[in-house]
Amino acid sequence: MHFADVLPLRSGASIRAYDLSYETYGQLNADKSNAVLICHALNASHHVAGVYLDESGQIQKKSEGWWDTMIGPGKPVDTNRFFVIGVNNLGSCFGSTGPMQTNPDTNEVYGADFPVVTVQDWVDAQARLLDALGIQTLAAVMGGSLGGMQALSWTLQYPGRVRHAVVVASAPNLTAENIAFNEVARRAIVTDPDFHGGHFYKHGVLPKRGLRIARMIGHITYLSDDVMNEKFGRQLRDAAGIKFSTQDVEFQIESYLRYQGDKFAEYFDANTYLLITRALDYFDPAGEFGGDLSRALAQASAKFLLVSFTTDWRFSPARSREIVKALLDNQIDVSYAEIDAPHGHDAFLLDDARYMGVVRSYFESKVSA
Amino acid sequence: MHFADVLPLRSGASIRAYDLSYETYGQLNADKSNAVLICHALNASHHVAGVYLDESGQIQKKSEGWWDTMIGPGKPVDTNRFFVIGVNNLGSCFGSTGPMQTNPDTNEVYGADFPVVTVQDWVDAQARLLDALGIQTLAAVMGGSLGGMQALSWTLQYPGRVRHAVVVASAPNLTAENIAFNEVARRAIVTDPDFHGGHFYKHGVLPKRGLRIARMIGHITYLSDDVMNEKFGRQLRDAAGIKFSTQDVEFQIESYLRYQGDKFAEYFDANTYLLITRALDYFDPAGEFGGDLSRALAQASAKFLLVSFTTDWRFSPARSREIVKALLDNQIDVSYAEIDAPHGHDAFLLDDARYMGVVRSYFESKVSA
Repeated sequence: MHFADVLPLRSGASIRAYDLSYETYGQLNADKSNAVLICHALNASHHVAGVYLDESGQIQKKSEGWWDTMIGPGKPVDTNRFFVIGVNNLGSCFGSTGPMQTNPDTNEVYGADFPVVTVQDWVDAQARLLDALGIQTLAAVMGGSLGGMQALSWTLQYPGRVRHAVVVASAPNLTAENIAFNEVARRAIVTDPDFHGGHFYKHGVLPKRGLRIARMIGHITYLSDDVMNEKFGRQLRDAAGIKFSTQDVEFQIESYLRYQGDKFAEYFDANTYLLITRALDYFDPAGEFGGDLSRALAQASAKFLLVSFTTDWRFSPARSREIVKALLDNQIDVSYAEIDAPHGHDAFLLDDARYMGVVRSYFESKVSA
Repeated sequence: MHFADVLPLRSGASIRAYDLSYETYGQLNADKSNAVLICHALNASHHVAGVYLDESGQIQKKSEGWWDTMIGPGKPVDTNRFFVIGVNNLGSCFGSTGPMQTNPDTNEVYGADFPVVTVQDWVDAQARLLDALGIQTLAAVMGGSLGGMQALSWTLQYPGRVRHAVVVASAPNLTAENIAFNEVARRAIVTDPDFHGGHFYKHGVLPKRGLRIARMIGHITYLSDDVMNEKFGRQLRDAAGIKFSTQDVEFQIESYLRYQGDKFAEYFDANTYLLITRALDYFDPAGEFGGDLSRALAQASAKFLLVSFTTDWRFSPARSREIVKALLDNQIDVSYAEIDAPHGHDAFLLDDARYMGVVRSYFESKVSA
């Protein structure tokens, strides 16, 4: 969807014109009351559910949407009832306008000149997409991690346009440790000689070393210590034993992380990584209320489902409980499930029966189409 | 101290001749029974206690030994009673033979050719230092973190030469997550274009980018989430507010981490970083006993003090408790203190009254000189 109107941003800058990539699943009903907007986290996209077919009509391998276990016909967010919208955020690298695209003001690739975007800016852009689709009110807005922050922000920026918010594995803001991990990842990218101050495109190189390191750090924080021990433990890659090398892979966990880093560096844009981690850092709805989250959430009028996972140390259950408490302080209707799952932050993307059951129940019993 | 004899290493390689830097504090008694060996962790050295004087006899700023709160006259490890030895490990970069020095076989700087050393190799080298000092038996061997691993290994390699082992904030081996953090740090160093396969010395450059990233990652894991929030929280560096920049410092925690990274990259050797993190990865006394730590520790005959810190998520109290349990399984005398301290892994270097009190009590009541 192309948007010809200027989008003013929280930074004071603006985007003159832009495109948003989106996908929809299910049918919008006659009174346009059954729309569910899905907000994505760091490295995901508008491709939330379903699969892609190749030219011969065969299902493309590994083309499942990133929340395909959650969304589809008969699934917890049932596309037989709901019209689900996945949208790629501004500044991302999967089709929406971002640093890899041409700046209409200069006719050069944006690169590091792409303006800094915030969670609130994304929500504004998403609201314009709904306008264009003729949807006034969302049955629900939903997301995990950074996506959950967008869902929460929707209830504050457009309280009249959201009936339900489903906020999974999220937090009211980042802790110092969260910011610290983001910063190390950003420094790895920015100090990669191939970054060229963010204008690497015109040098014909990619800062892959930095992206690999960033992704490896990210992966460690997505998993729990327990699940890493269970999956990899101290297993060696070579059954013959250790090789006594500082640079070769010795342990399976090293092999796994290198693989994840290599894969990521092939498809993800470095400037997008900087932008999205900064949007995470900046998100802090309580900030303008002197840190008082209860006062910040007084603006909300949606009903809420919060979900957290016991082993998530990136966005721990305690952070979700802060949101629950602030909502209760405002007599806002909130359901909260703390799922006992071993997978750490990654759990929000996985097919856990209790987690899926909670979301299914919520949509079946509380969210009208 | 120069050692002219070949030191065989666990890798099968050997070091032809080598030096160990060491310092001592207090007086060795007549029957040489009051020696306490201090083993250091990743970036520390033989300079364990006391200060250095400059040429005019003034105390040099910031020249305190890394465990100066713990060791000295009247301190928990009282140098009025004990003869304390600090030794810099082989492969380190503070005076003992390591990658920055000349390989006598090639007359070139070792660089990446310095052989991989293990905790056990270090203990062997330390035992030779004691031989040279005429010390048969240690009153105690003591260390924190990786230093605690060396103390534990002493009791297994030279059970007859250690009366007490004090193992602080340590673990019987690394978890997959611990290895993962080491590996990301190593990859940051090795993929820095200035690393030149570990032979950067002859190129006249240092892989500072990689070292900075490695140190930033390390620092995050040394601190607890709580103490980071207390010290830095979401405080901005600029009182005027956020600048909406992906590359400038916005938050105080970023400024702190960059400063720590910069400082470290000025003085620490990149090859040493690789060697020492690998020694951590490889340490696993239970490994040769099918993972059965109780069987592994059956070789020990020393008495033990174990100390851990509640907020240490790098080497959590649960890891110390594994060692305690395995010692108890062998009817070995072990005291264990789990100190409620907010500082994370770093707590083992800090002046905490309960921690210092426990070590003082142990040395006063149990360790004869």
